[in-house]
Amino acid sequence: MLYLVGLGLHDEKDVTVRGMEAIKGSERVYLEAYTSILGVGKERLEAFYGKEVVVADRDMVEMDSDEILRDADKVDVAFLVVGDPFGATTHSDLLLRADALSVPYTVIHNASVMNAVGALGLALYNYGQTVSIPFFTDSWRPDSWLERVRENLRLGLHTLCLLDIKVKEQSEENLARGRKIFEPPRYMSVPCAISQLLSLLEEEGQTPAEASSDDAVALNPATTLAISASRVGAPSQRFVSGTLEELSKLDEEAFGGPLHSFVIVGRRFHALERDFAVRWAVDKDNWNQVSNGVYKVRD
Amino acid sequence: MLYLVGLGLHDEKDVTVRGMEAIKGSERVYLEAYTSILGVGKERLEAFYGKEVVVADRDMVEMDSDEILRDADKVDVAFLVVGDPFGATTHSDLLLRADALSVPYTVIHNASVMNAVGALGLALYNYGQTVSIPFFTDSWRPDSWLERVRENLRLGLHTLCLLDIKVKEQSEENLARGRKIFEPPRYMSVPCAISQLLSLLEEEGQTPAEASSDDAVALNPATTLAISASRVGAPSQRFVSGTLEELSKLDEEAFGGPLHSFVIVGRRFHALERDFAVRWAVDKDNWNQVSNGVYKVRD
Repeated sequence: MLYLVGLGLHDEKDVTVRGMEAIKGSERVYLEAYTSILGVGKERLEAFYGKEVVVADRDMVEMDSDEILRDADKVDVAFLVVGDPFGATTHSDLLLRADALSVPYTVIHNASVMNAVGALGLALYNYGQTVSIPFFTDSWRPDSWLERVRENLRLGLHTLCLLDIKVKEQSEENLARGRKIFEPPRYMSVPCAISQLLSLLEEEGQTPAEASSDDAVALNPATTLAISASRVGAPSQRFVSGTLEELSKLDEEAFGGPLHSFVIVGRRFHALERDFAVRWAVDKDNWNQVSNGVYKVRD
Repeated sequence: MLYLVGLGLHDEKDVTVRGMEAIKGSERVYLEAYTSILGVGKERLEAFYGKEVVVADRDMVEMDSDEILRDADKVDVAFLVVGDPFGATTHSDLLLRADALSVPYTVIHNASVMNAVGALGLALYNYGQTVSIPFFTDSWRPDSWLERVRENLRLGLHTLCLLDIKVKEQSEENLARGRKIFEPPRYMSVPCAISQLLSLLEEEGQTPAEASSDDAVALNPATTLAISASRVGAPSQRFVSGTLEELSKLDEEAFGGPLHSFVIVGRRFHALERDFAVRWAVDKDNWNQVSNGVYKVRD
């Protein structure tokens, strides 16, 4: 049996009891380590599970999945994924390959940021599509995610913005020369993401009036509310709420270490949600003023 | 400390190790039992956790939260929620009340159907807002959710449809007479939900051409794909894929017992997703034909 086990959000104790049993009973244990990171290293996992854990990078999962699946029709193999096994990536390729090899599989679910973001107090029903914000480079400033944010805003929906992580990436030069030398990992911070957003809006020559006849989708930095969520599910978890402008002016230290994400608040926003999130506001008075004046929250 | 502990999707072993520790260390343990159900009774939880579990109905959580929070500034209290604590309901009221009483709280996340639906293989990024489909009554046929499905479809997005559950409901007569007599629980099935959907479409006098100039949002029963998910995360979990018409013609037995949900597939639908879901198709040839011909999936 192949067990796809979600590890949850933070450390070795976020695995479920069922997941733990599957790991302990497995002959081999792999850890998928390219779409997200835990707050702890694999040594902590190995000590807690009492099992050697093999880190599987993208190359291994995509090119060498038969090694992961080897003998899994006869013995149990666990494939660990930070968050939920279907969160960032569906791992459908691996499961279809298991089917082709007549290897049965079982999925053991866990929390991922996709549902744990509910901790911000905004109803999950009122979220639209989730976007990923990639790092800008000197020559590439991807902006397709911005249109998706606006599609959500037009419907009054919130947008969960997940921020780029670069793990085990090669420089262009090392890639061209086939050198397996990897850059240090990089994790996008909330101020970096929001400054990229503001620079795209500036490029558009944006004023609320020009950008859209619909003020809700104009993304005016002074009147668009957002809530950041750092290290969701960890003891050091931190939430900060404010306008885009307010959040952009904070130092990275205000959010703490990675991983960061944030939510752009849509107009389906209610009094209880305002009151829940005001507790983390950069400026409580302004949070309430924008909520009531611009978002038209009614008590 | 108040611990809000997500129990996950199915049984007593779906709690996380961290959640289990919080429960074992708590002086009182409550189980929120009105927004979802586990696959097992509270006796199984009590035996596994070694703790008495008090079932908290909506009245208790909403009217008597101070009893739940009693002394929680001095001792640990666990409040258990099926799925994730912020899945179906945010429980913001309870947490704000905790704040007001200076009771610190910690949330221990878990999987909910909102993210575990990823197991269907459709990228979670391409889901729009989630809808709840309520039971029709003789005098009330709510349809606002249908417009939300269409908002998603216009953007090419999938819709997770959660189906009504009626637990501890009173008949109008018993409610009027103040009799605390409760109706047997009811759980909406996929065929019931889809037949309600089809009857709303019929009322609209719908043909694809009339309903919308955009064929993708017309919800033509013969050419709209859907995937049902019953008892997600349980060993008896079952997925069925097909057109709305195909799913509506199946018996309830094809889906098994509650809880049921289903996804209406939007046009952001890819070859790997088609190939992943064809394994559960009512009619594999038709699934592939509609995927390729109507949804324009390209290999």
